[in-house]
Amino acid sequence: MLSESIQSELGEIVGNEHLLTSPEALICYSYDGTFHESLPEAVILPADTAEIAQVLELCNRQRIPVIPRGMASGLAAATVPVDGGLILNTVRLNRLLEIDKANMMATVQAGIITSDLQLEVEKLGLFYPPDPSSVRHSTIGGNIACNAGGPRCLKYGITGDYVMALEVVLADGRILRTGGKAIKNVTGYDLVSLFTGSEGTLGVITEATLKLIALPEAKRTAQAIFPRLEDASKSVNAVLWGGIVPATLELMDETAINAVEDYMQLGLPRDAEAILIIETDGDPADAARDMDVVARICSEGGASEVRIAKTPAESDELWRARRSISGSLGRKRPNKLGEDISVPRSAIPDTIRGIKEISQNRNLPIVIFGHAGDGNLHPNILFDKNDPEEWQRVQAAVADLFGLAVAVGGTLSGEHGVGTLKKPFLESDVGPVAIDVMRSVRHALDPHGILNPGKIFD
Amino acid sequence: MLSESIQSELGEIVGNEHLLTSPEALICYSYDGTFHESLPEAVILPADTAEIAQVLELCNRQRIPVIPRGMASGLAAATVPVDGGLILNTVRLNRLLEIDKANMMATVQAGIITSDLQLEVEKLGLFYPPDPSSVRHSTIGGNIACNAGGPRCLKYGITGDYVMALEVVLADGRILRTGGKAIKNVTGYDLVSLFTGSEGTLGVITEATLKLIALPEAKRTAQAIFPRLEDASKSVNAVLWGGIVPATLELMDETAINAVEDYMQLGLPRDAEAILIIETDGDPADAARDMDVVARICSEGGASEVRIAKTPAESDELWRARRSISGSLGRKRPNKLGEDISVPRSAIPDTIRGIKEISQNRNLPIVIFGHAGDGNLHPNILFDKNDPEEWQRVQAAVADLFGLAVAVGGTLSGEHGVGTLKKPFLESDVGPVAIDVMRSVRHALDPHGILNPGKIFD
Repeated sequence: MLSESIQSELGEIVGNEHLLTSPEALICYSYDGTFHESLPEAVILPADTAEIAQVLELCNRQRIPVIPRGMASGLAAATVPVDGGLILNTVRLNRLLEIDKANMMATVQAGIITSDLQLEVEKLGLFYPPDPSSVRHSTIGGNIACNAGGPRCLKYGITGDYVMALEVVLADGRILRTGGKAIKNVTGYDLVSLFTGSEGTLGVITEATLKLIALPEAKRTAQAIFPRLEDASKSVNAVLWGGIVPATLELMDETAINAVEDYMQLGLPRDAEAILIIETDGDPADAARDMDVVARICSEGGASEVRIAKTPAESDELWRARRSISGSLGRKRPNKLGEDISVPRSAIPDTIRGIKEISQNRNLPIVIFGHAGDGNLHPNILFDKNDPEEWQRVQAAVADLFGLAVAVGGTLSGEHGVGTLKKPFLESDVGPVAIDVMRSVRHALDPHGILNPGKIFD
Repeated sequence: MLSESIQSELGEIVGNEHLLTSPEALICYSYDGTFHESLPEAVILPADTAEIAQVLELCNRQRIPVIPRGMASGLAAATVPVDGGLILNTVRLNRLLEIDKANMMATVQAGIITSDLQLEVEKLGLFYPPDPSSVRHSTIGGNIACNAGGPRCLKYGITGDYVMALEVVLADGRILRTGGKAIKNVTGYDLVSLFTGSEGTLGVITEATLKLIALPEAKRTAQAIFPRLEDASKSVNAVLWGGIVPATLELMDETAINAVEDYMQLGLPRDAEAILIIETDGDPADAARDMDVVARICSEGGASEVRIAKTPAESDELWRARRSISGSLGRKRPNKLGEDISVPRSAIPDTIRGIKEISQNRNLPIVIFGHAGDGNLHPNILFDKNDPEEWQRVQAAVADLFGLAVAVGGTLSGEHGVGTLKKPFLESDVGPVAIDVMRSVRHALDPHGILNPGKIFD
């Protein structure tokens, strides 16, 4: 599809050194954080919005599929070029354009690494809270395109809660600027929210203005051990009912506890059904007082032990169990597939019970951890991809997981998105009318379907 | 347009007693909270979603304009039937369907009065924060359609921040359910945000699931008097920089102070350029401590006096000045036109200076008050509508105000919406590309343009 004359036109727009077509380059851009792989026909790295606009104008005219991509840390194969086409990489747009202290906002290009932005604003006492686990290697543009979350989102909200304004190049190359620095803005439709989480299917995000908040002065960390999972789950709700919103409220079930303990020997109680890892923050007095309340609620709610860190080193130690989960899983089985279901908080116990049944029925270890405070769980299926029969069972278990999530009133994805992987399950979650509405919106903005084709829905 | 046969079909759907066509009835549904008036051809009051779906299916087939309406307290003429058509009133859908304590959410029909919902959830220690000034007579459906705000939105966010799920009847009568009780949900496009604030142009909202939070136990109120407006404005930012987000942070400028003082003789300082009215909330210790910090920041920032209420009665007394503004304006001039511009917080001093210039140039008193914490100001132009020359100057002043808002990086509307009134100014704010995108989305969802035609944009 990419004829020599089109390649030459693309090269003229960005400079030939920024158009990659060698087999090695194409392989590097053929995958993301999943198992999916597919070669693009070329990779283009424009320098700025104007070049992206020219590239899209050309591709729209020539009906060339364009797959917008940041650092490809995604977990739904949303940036894998499933049907070939042109990978449009935004990493050269990596400038921090402005930190507006008075309004507490930052304006950045889409390709900046999220933690780079965070470090810069923290120097000024400001805080950009969203913390996807990819925060050190994913881009803000990618975070916005996927509406990324993270543990701190319980208290502080997800990426979309911080996007004040966007610059987006539309499929036909026109440049849209939407939103602004006015905190309240109800002028016309909320296009900022429409593009946020659209996974590169409605436009290429090139610039964003992000809300910042005051950097919390202090934080406190605790680990609460629950002999019974049900009690852990109820304590989560009791804490939030108490009017306290911890910065994070993470859960590890007994499979996660034992996986970590096999690997690390941290002295975790193997017979506990759940551990909650809780962080409060704010000014020092607040963070301490909130933690005291949380500890009391957990103790009264059935925790056999609540350990509160007294120093940053102790805090790190308490977090170590949670942070070691991913590493420890690799020791148990060669591969893992991490899902991302999100359920009403009240449904967490039923969901965990359901996951255990799926694990048993499909004869596959499934480790459960995640953001209990907001009901976003990451069941990780452990397996060996070289065993085709096992891989089939993994796929069946994934379908079971999605079925479970929807059955308890939840959804397929809390933070990873739909991409390629969850597309077959979308209708079972949102229903045919919603898909039809989404499809109409997509067709209205991209009539030739050049933007990230084959993603979210067909 | 509404032939007898169509009227008879509509009557069959809802029962003839719920289809109003008498001249008296049509007059009652010809206006909202603005000066605009226009008669509908009929008014229909369906009982439920199924009836609304049937009405829309018929109207779509017959190309009859449908104007969705709650209690018509809107301030942008969004529910005025400017080109006739059928008013579709949702007030019979007024049931509170569920309060889900475990997940802290309520599910309501669109026609419930917002303060009725608030009272019910507060009985259970829960809190639905959005507080538009119409809260005692506007519906949740209308609040969502306009993405309504209010003073408490500084700390707690606007209506859209609380909408978890919607049931919407589309233009062709299909019923869309979108969103759910999972707190994190990135499955497909964010249709909930798309319909929120769409002012009845994309669908008829029939049901909503709303997030609730724990009811704050206590609040503290203070009034800070500033000889210089600039200092008041800087203190607003200093408070927020201090990491404290008051529940409300309201500003009255000297014109507002003097209007209230003329009317009420509360003993307000006529020579002060600004008064801030501040409320902190939370647990009793927090609310008091936050207020101490706020008071210190205001004093250090140039306040000549900071009065902190010690009792609920004293708190009411401090709020009286702010609450008396609207009433006091009627004494000065027969009519007032309240605008709703929203600007970056840092631009508040320039904006207020600009408004004073407009007031002088157009020879019209303009009283300024509003939500300083989030930059959402309500300049109220005082005039006599019976004087056609003055009315022309009012319209010129409104255009000036919008020009000013956009020039300082702000927007036309922080909480009232675009409706009919701000339509001519939309392009100057959002630009032609954004309007084109909005128009494409609207056309995709309502190809025959039957839903609230002539609103937001043509």
